[in-house]
Amino acid sequence: MEILVYAHGSSGEEWLADLQRALPLADVRLWREGDQAAADYAVVWRPPAEMLRGRADLKAIFNLGAGVDAILQLGEALPDVPVVRLDDAGMGVQMAEYVTHAVLRYFRRFDEFDAQSRDHQWRFLKPRSKEDFCIGILGMGVLGSRIAEALQHFDFPVHGWSRSRKEIAGVHSHAGTEELETFLSHSQVLVCVLPLTDDTSGILDYGTLAHLPKGAFLINVARGAHLVERDLLQLLEDGHLAGATLDVFHDEPLPSDHPFWREPRITITPHIAALTQRGDSIRQIAAKIKLMERGQPIAGLVDRTKGY
Amino acid sequence: MEILVYAHGSSGEEWLADLQRALPLADVRLWREGDQAAADYAVVWRPPAEMLRGRADLKAIFNLGAGVDAILQLGEALPDVPVVRLDDAGMGVQMAEYVTHAVLRYFRRFDEFDAQSRDHQWRFLKPRSKEDFCIGILGMGVLGSRIAEALQHFDFPVHGWSRSRKEIAGVHSHAGTEELETFLSHSQVLVCVLPLTDDTSGILDYGTLAHLPKGAFLINVARGAHLVERDLLQLLEDGHLAGATLDVFHDEPLPSDHPFWREPRITITPHIAALTQRGDSIRQIAAKIKLMERGQPIAGLVDRTKGY
Repeated sequence: MEILVYAHGSSGEEWLADLQRALPLADVRLWREGDQAAADYAVVWRPPAEMLRGRADLKAIFNLGAGVDAILQLGEALPDVPVVRLDDAGMGVQMAEYVTHAVLRYFRRFDEFDAQSRDHQWRFLKPRSKEDFCIGILGMGVLGSRIAEALQHFDFPVHGWSRSRKEIAGVHSHAGTEELETFLSHSQVLVCVLPLTDDTSGILDYGTLAHLPKGAFLINVARGAHLVERDLLQLLEDGHLAGATLDVFHDEPLPSDHPFWREPRITITPHIAALTQRGDSIRQIAAKIKLMERGQPIAGLVDRTKGY
Repeated sequence: MEILVYAHGSSGEEWLADLQRALPLADVRLWREGDQAAADYAVVWRPPAEMLRGRADLKAIFNLGAGVDAILQLGEALPDVPVVRLDDAGMGVQMAEYVTHAVLRYFRRFDEFDAQSRDHQWRFLKPRSKEDFCIGILGMGVLGSRIAEALQHFDFPVHGWSRSRKEIAGVHSHAGTEELETFLSHSQVLVCVLPLTDDTSGILDYGTLAHLPKGAFLINVARGAHLVERDLLQLLEDGHLAGATLDVFHDEPLPSDHPFWREPRITITPHIAALTQRGDSIRQIAAKIKLMERGQPIAGLVDRTKGY
């Protein structure tokens, strides 16, 4: 069995070594420009079009992340073979950590206490009430559900929105375009963890965000392209939104002259909310390859018409 | 039935009104200097000695908080009647929120990302590993257990230390003076939620904190008197400790010339980690008074020999 490996932003050597250990009978190699030799599987992160073009013989392409937007954007260069995304693979708990920290920071006003501290000020601030602090999660897949579970542990009311209705214990579920406005009107904090598709690109624009209650907060841990950045700045300037915590941006690294850097109400992290964990990912991919080799079904198949 | 109310730092009017509503047949009054008329119960927060001196006829004194140090410090002025502390009363989840936020902030290096942001810097920082990030909780009562539960939800390894051994699922339990050093050596983050007693006053001194691993963090949400403040500054200066998040201080409000204000590695909040919730507290106290009137046992009785 031949496996091709390509991981944008790294040499791929560590992925290769771990995958070889997990599948000792396979022949695992790093893809290099010009390699058109046959292969059974490809394990990739943001692969170039040349790597996959014409490889209709692949049994599957495994994506080293939860978001498959970079693969699907290859368009006609992407052969018509199954594309498999990572399910969780250690990312769920990291997302839950990131979002819980940001939500608690707003809810408990820790950002304001820090600002007071810098001025050597000891001053009580009126606590917020959880009844007025609903969290709305846009995207209720594996990651969104894990975030909801973490927030419910602290008794936050949680609303979820997804394309099709999801029944998750304790979460007020909203589905489809027709229920988006109601969902937004409840969300004192809006958490975006949507897949990036043609339908969701630019979904966080002025029209959407203006439906949030006055004083709402935005947390984007999905993709930079979900957000219309100038619209966020406008809503902060209008005083409609109180702040945002952003891990992803249109251009990454965020350009040094970007206005977000100068807006103290925007908290910026350099795309670190959830890192792919090599160990967990390799175990998951190796297990799926073994299932496929035995002709058994696997989870995590991407539906190209939906885009995730 | 006569009930006396005194709440330091407030007029007490709201406590009186709510308690009267919860116990409509009782005669509830605010204690004022000189009031020596008979009473069955006292509901107090940091009462003056004159209020309680000689009142051996009280059936119980209810403390409007989890920490009873201020009452027990009344010494001989405190009559020999049952003292009852609040169990949780909404404080558990607040403590869990406060400590979880502080732990995630250190673990995920959000404080460092914020510092980079202020310099308009986009830079990846190596993630910490949970295996090297044990949380040690000093004090495993109602509040400590709730904190442990919240941190375990994020898969942090949790160690607990208490005077007598507590068996809590998933928590490595340590007990007594002889096991304190081992407990400390495991604690990358030390969370203090101990009651303040003669035994625990000043427990967070140089000798104790030096047993923490190099680069450890301290979170104190108990009482300022647990910490020897100059020893913390020394250990930060030595580079042995990496930082501290403190909600409580020897002198509150923290004096404006206190060196803690000028130490960026110390995060200061103005004693807000867990506020007594009036509704929850009143329901709890009213229920206990009803039980006592029927001659039934109640929870939360303070053991004066232990001091909590």
